[in-house]
Amino acid sequence: MNKKLKILITNDDGIDSPGLKELAIALNKIADLLVVAPDRQRSAISQAMTIAAPLMPHSLNVAENIVAYAVNGTPVDCVKLGVSSLMKEKPDLICAGINLGPNTSVSVAYSGTVAAAMEGVVQGIPSIAFSLNSFSYNQDFKSAANYAYKILNLLIKEELPKDLLLNVNIPSLAEREIKGIKVTHLSNSKWIDAYQKRIDPFGREYYWFSGEFVNFDNDANSDDNALKNGFVSISPIKVNYYRSEYSSLLEKIFL
Amino acid sequence: MNKKLKILITNDDGIDSPGLKELAIALNKIADLLVVAPDRQRSAISQAMTIAAPLMPHSLNVAENIVAYAVNGTPVDCVKLGVSSLMKEKPDLICAGINLGPNTSVSVAYSGTVAAAMEGVVQGIPSIAFSLNSFSYNQDFKSAANYAYKILNLLIKEELPKDLLLNVNIPSLAEREIKGIKVTHLSNSKWIDAYQKRIDPFGREYYWFSGEFVNFDNDANSDDNALKNGFVSISPIKVNYYRSEYSSLLEKIFL
Repeated sequence: MNKKLKILITNDDGIDSPGLKELAIALNKIADLLVVAPDRQRSAISQAMTIAAPLMPHSLNVAENIVAYAVNGTPVDCVKLGVSSLMKEKPDLICAGINLGPNTSVSVAYSGTVAAAMEGVVQGIPSIAFSLNSFSYNQDFKSAANYAYKILNLLIKEELPKDLLLNVNIPSLAEREIKGIKVTHLSNSKWIDAYQKRIDPFGREYYWFSGEFVNFDNDANSDDNALKNGFVSISPIKVNYYRSEYSSLLEKIFL
Repeated sequence: MNKKLKILITNDDGIDSPGLKELAIALNKIADLLVVAPDRQRSAISQAMTIAAPLMPHSLNVAENIVAYAVNGTPVDCVKLGVSSLMKEKPDLICAGINLGPNTSVSVAYSGTVAAAMEGVVQGIPSIAFSLNSFSYNQDFKSAANYAYKILNLLIKEELPKDLLLNVNIPSLAEREIKGIKVTHLSNSKWIDAYQKRIDPFGREYYWFSGEFVNFDNDANSDDNALKNGFVSISPIKVNYYRSEYSSLLEKIFL
């Protein structure tokens, strides 16, 4: 990649997220950017897309000299609209994030941030999802954004496969305290679902999701454990749903 | 499976969908059902889940003697809430559909119907997504529902793996015209994204998704071609995002 990189940046926390702003400021040093992000918080929106309503992007600046569009849609909408309609040329890379909260293990299925990167590779564009291991609203994203910049600098020396899809999780630590990078696999973890049942002022029952994320994995090279041990976790992921190993069972049942 | 099957039924077209009703009527002949479905149309909602608002189910009947809950959430919410809170025992099977419109190939990533079945296997419950190859609002789902019943009758003779996830697409044909069942793989197809740009009455630009689904696959055993040729398509699918084959490339770049 010799000429200046073109990067589409998006997220699922919405256009006003500090994680998006810091990622854009950091990557603006090495790339031409377009930011296209949901106009509001869309966490856990997965690969949802808008098919029964129109999208109306409006432009704004997320930081000095960084042009952005806020879109009344999902992260996947932002990638699709950005690549097909808002950018003059196909981007070299899609970067999503920096998400407030980790996206490890089974959470990649629900995360809108990871979904944006999945949509990138569906479009034939190498894509990276960045998430920070903190849920604090006062979180400083600068250390994580610097790490995103370092990761990009290492990646752009390579010819990247078009289906390269990286899920990056960054510890919530000062930069000097981060132990380095680990190439990881998604951990064997799950959400133990629970809903708290409550009663509204009119006597009606309602339920709040209160699931708990439980890590069953002891491998230091799993994403959750790398994070816990102070490493940046980079997991290669893919989107491939066909399960060939059950074909013969089904042929026995149905044919 | 000797005692009477317990099935949780959901969909993404919403509680008032005729496809949901016909599926419930058909499966009620062989199982104890609970229907838990979104209170409105949620097509293309993928594996989105509700984490920042409470869910308020309300009960109703979708057909005579078939109890249902309508939920202000997504198909994944319906599965999570149904299994964890609304059903006394874990169901033996999750069935989603019958969706108005096919869910083949890459569309499995966006479909809320398929997502509900994916959530089922995340919960350790064999799950099936049923979709009909028609977008007509006047569609008769009876023939498709009869086929769903036939498929269930063949399946329940077996001990099903807990991670069995079937994506079933049914041609929009009278039952006698359906050629039979094919066990298929997801076809090599894609959405060529396009957005029609229009101007609203106040001069603002907006965009309608107008992508086109293109099938590049010639294999008669792909889901799209099975459907086209008049067969019910049953594809085994899975949810597994880790891509081990790129680990060494990443270790070369980052470590």
